[in-house]
Amino acid sequence: MSLTNDLNHLKEIDKEISLLNSAISLLWWDRSTIMPTKAAEERAEQISYLTILIHEKSTSKELNKIILRLSKNKSKLNHIDRAIINNYSWKISRINKLPKKHVKETSRTIVMAQHHWEIARKNNNFKIFEPYLKKIIELKKREAEYIDSKNHPYEVLLQDYERGMSLKILDETFNKLKPEIHTLIKRIKKSSKYGKEFNIKKIEFDVEKQKIACQDVSTLILEDNERFLITVSMHPFMTKISPNDLRITTSFRKDPLFSLFSTVHESGHALYESEFDQKLKYSILHDAPSLGIHESQSRLWENQVCKSKNFWKYYYPKYQKLFPKLKNISLERFYESINIVRPSLIRIESDELTYHLHIIIRYELEKKLIEGKIAVSELPVLWNKLYKEYLGITPKTDTEGVLQDVHWSQGSIAYFPTYTLGTIYSAMIYEQMLNENPKLEQEIEEGDFKFIKKWLKENIHKHGAVLSTSEIMEKCCGKKISEESLIKYYKNKFGNIYKI
Amino acid sequence: MSLTNDLNHLKEIDKEISLLNSAISLLWWDRSTIMPTKAAEERAEQISYLTILIHEKSTSKELNKIILRLSKNKSKLNHIDRAIINNYSWKISRINKLPKKHVKETSRTIVMAQHHWEIARKNNNFKIFEPYLKKIIELKKREAEYIDSKNHPYEVLLQDYERGMSLKILDETFNKLKPEIHTLIKRIKKSSKYGKEFNIKKIEFDVEKQKIACQDVSTLILEDNERFLITVSMHPFMTKISPNDLRITTSFRKDPLFSLFSTVHESGHALYESEFDQKLKYSILHDAPSLGIHESQSRLWENQVCKSKNFWKYYYPKYQKLFPKLKNISLERFYESINIVRPSLIRIESDELTYHLHIIIRYELEKKLIEGKIAVSELPVLWNKLYKEYLGITPKTDTEGVLQDVHWSQGSIAYFPTYTLGTIYSAMIYEQMLNENPKLEQEIEEGDFKFIKKWLKENIHKHGAVLSTSEIMEKCCGKKISEESLIKYYKNKFGNIYKI
Repeated sequence: MSLTNDLNHLKEIDKEISLLNSAISLLWWDRSTIMPTKAAEERAEQISYLTILIHEKSTSKELNKIILRLSKNKSKLNHIDRAIINNYSWKISRINKLPKKHVKETSRTIVMAQHHWEIARKNNNFKIFEPYLKKIIELKKREAEYIDSKNHPYEVLLQDYERGMSLKILDETFNKLKPEIHTLIKRIKKSSKYGKEFNIKKIEFDVEKQKIACQDVSTLILEDNERFLITVSMHPFMTKISPNDLRITTSFRKDPLFSLFSTVHESGHALYESEFDQKLKYSILHDAPSLGIHESQSRLWENQVCKSKNFWKYYYPKYQKLFPKLKNISLERFYESINIVRPSLIRIESDELTYHLHIIIRYELEKKLIEGKIAVSELPVLWNKLYKEYLGITPKTDTEGVLQDVHWSQGSIAYFPTYTLGTIYSAMIYEQMLNENPKLEQEIEEGDFKFIKKWLKENIHKHGAVLSTSEIMEKCCGKKISEESLIKYYKNKFGNIYKI
Repeated sequence: MSLTNDLNHLKEIDKEISLLNSAISLLWWDRSTIMPTKAAEERAEQISYLTILIHEKSTSKELNKIILRLSKNKSKLNHIDRAIINNYSWKISRINKLPKKHVKETSRTIVMAQHHWEIARKNNNFKIFEPYLKKIIELKKREAEYIDSKNHPYEVLLQDYERGMSLKILDETFNKLKPEIHTLIKRIKKSSKYGKEFNIKKIEFDVEKQKIACQDVSTLILEDNERFLITVSMHPFMTKISPNDLRITTSFRKDPLFSLFSTVHESGHALYESEFDQKLKYSILHDAPSLGIHESQSRLWENQVCKSKNFWKYYYPKYQKLFPKLKNISLERFYESINIVRPSLIRIESDELTYHLHIIIRYELEKKLIEGKIAVSELPVLWNKLYKEYLGITPKTDTEGVLQDVHWSQGSIAYFPTYTLGTIYSAMIYEQMLNENPKLEQEIEEGDFKFIKKWLKENIHKHGAVLSTSEIMEKCCGKKISEESLIKYYKNKFGNIYKI
């Protein structure tokens, strides 16, 4: 076999897997937005079968041999081809260890688990979801064991979402962040502003007009409407069906700005996916290297850009026209109101600061679940206990407590930490952009996002999964990953708002 | 290999193909309803790849051997297993003859062709679509040649849609129907009623209220809303994603009742697909044996039931409440207005009678295209010539002429005749139901569809593709397929309306 033959063959398989992933993404997106409820079991069968096809392709002797041969000749290849091989080598080394039966069982379990999570939420009853989550935890423990029985199982699972991240660094980072956040919240609670902020949640905003605002801000970020789609789902998400088919969902809640900020958040994800180098199309490299870096893109647009005063200097007059109820609310009061710090029960409705406590609670619980230190049946009680301890409040129901997130039902264990990691990255990235362009905030004030977009495209987006997360971060920010920029940003932002 | 092993293996492959078909159906449905336009080429790649997977599975040596072994032991099997084997034998005998390259090319061509058909329509310019249609006709001629070079190519292609139907019977039937329709239309045109019918198209109906009516009538027919979905597309259609996921689309046009009758039509299709025997799930048998018999189900609900006076005796008071503009329009006048016979340009907006002339025009043109007697480039001129000759009117633009139907762009050549065949079947079926239940019309007047649904389920629906079209028709109607019932039904219905 010649090198060229092997490379062509690899790229053919790479494309086939990418096409199967597109079909799976559509089956999932459809399932979460529009599918008739009675089709849940059939949909599980469809997704499970396509997942098995990918598994078979990825574990085929053919692909294994090709990768082995190419790995020996890496020096003769360009950096993109090397990256394809590295990504497959890594992936294959993991899934080769998973029995087909296990993959099939997992894939079928998670579709049914998500279905019963939804029923459990509707009925406000964790018990309905419990057996499925129990099954998922068992499967995930077994998975970690299959892949690397010598390492900590949580660290093994974490690699699926944040490749290269160690439990050591994660714990160190979280252990530094946690007290800083606690202290900051304590100081805010003691400030004279606290409790006197303007509460925008008391105003009702027309849903049809919220839709207009969502379309408007997503167009600011994404520009080309022929590649994007916004629909409604219970839980907002973004999914790439294929490079020119990026789908955002949002939902309309009590907080009138929830739909707007969640759309901005998902648009940040979509912008990332839309700007991978065209050469990476139909490849394993047409992806982010980790969820953390993906999240940095959504967080940056949501928090640093769209929850800044500069952005609203530009956008508030337009927004007031859409919602005349805001006519007599000053920019200052409005800005305060969208940045209120207040312990609350629902993670995705929480403020920038308390958000991380929600993550840390999930992280601590799921780590113990995987370590076998706690049982699934104990979750509701332990969940409520930690909420009391970290946030000072207690959920009244399972739906506003342990059942609020979709992740566990999808088999995503060790996923949550990437939210906080992504937020840390976003602060590092924004700080770096400010260093390079001192006029940045003024540009945002003028609704000019050209610099941000160009910077993100050149430094992050275009690389896809050619570079690793740490390579990208160190290259663009010139330093190792650290929570310092985030803490500095919080102290500055909330220090100003709460005059502390 | 034991018989049981072979059977189990066959059923496994059967299920895998069914799951791949589900994914393809969703990719198509999504493409026709909601997909961002720039994703067209990527979607073509996805559909093409999954189609190839099915082709590979169907032509695999493994399946061929299993079918061969089982075919020799058919006498030991039950009727369902025999039917699976018969269906695969037939299918394999066809696709085995098609080179993989041809299948790939066809599948990719049709997705791009549909995309350019849409652009051509928007731009009202057949030239944009012409190269794609030319390619499709070439591919289809080659396909017929591959499959059976000794038979008439049109008859070969017809088998994909109406298996068992010969060109001889089709021509005989159409040759008898054509003059009868012409004569009836001539007599209607000479009647004193003609031109004095109440024209409901002059009234504008609120689209949101039309949606309510669509939901209402589809619920009358389908009952269980957790298995069905109605959305909007340019061209109404029904697609089964899986047994419990049936999707109807409709569109809102100048004729205020277009959305209603197209929803009823597609609901008839959906009811059929929803009532196949549960045992046939995930199998090649979970399907109708032909498009004609499928169409008989949509036509029966649309024409015999919902365009009858009896139905509107039940439904008109409700409908008037929804559309108060109808308050002063009598049932008699309303009934006339929804059954106006008038030559028109758009097939799917035409009345029951002239409808068949639209079909015959397409049939005559596509037969000649496949025979190589006319060129694709001649189509717009020939189309308009036939419309002038058969209907006395001429399209002003390509969009209201030769570009109006999606079928050719999807590679569906020899599909159109099944519409008229289905209408013929529907008249035979309805006549038989009336014979068996003389109170049927009274029941419809009371909004009671229990008898119809039970009769259709027992005699047609539940069989799926276990029986052939002619077996079903002869078994339930006790006679061979003939246009006589349809002509009788037309003479009676339009004789009454136009007093001729």
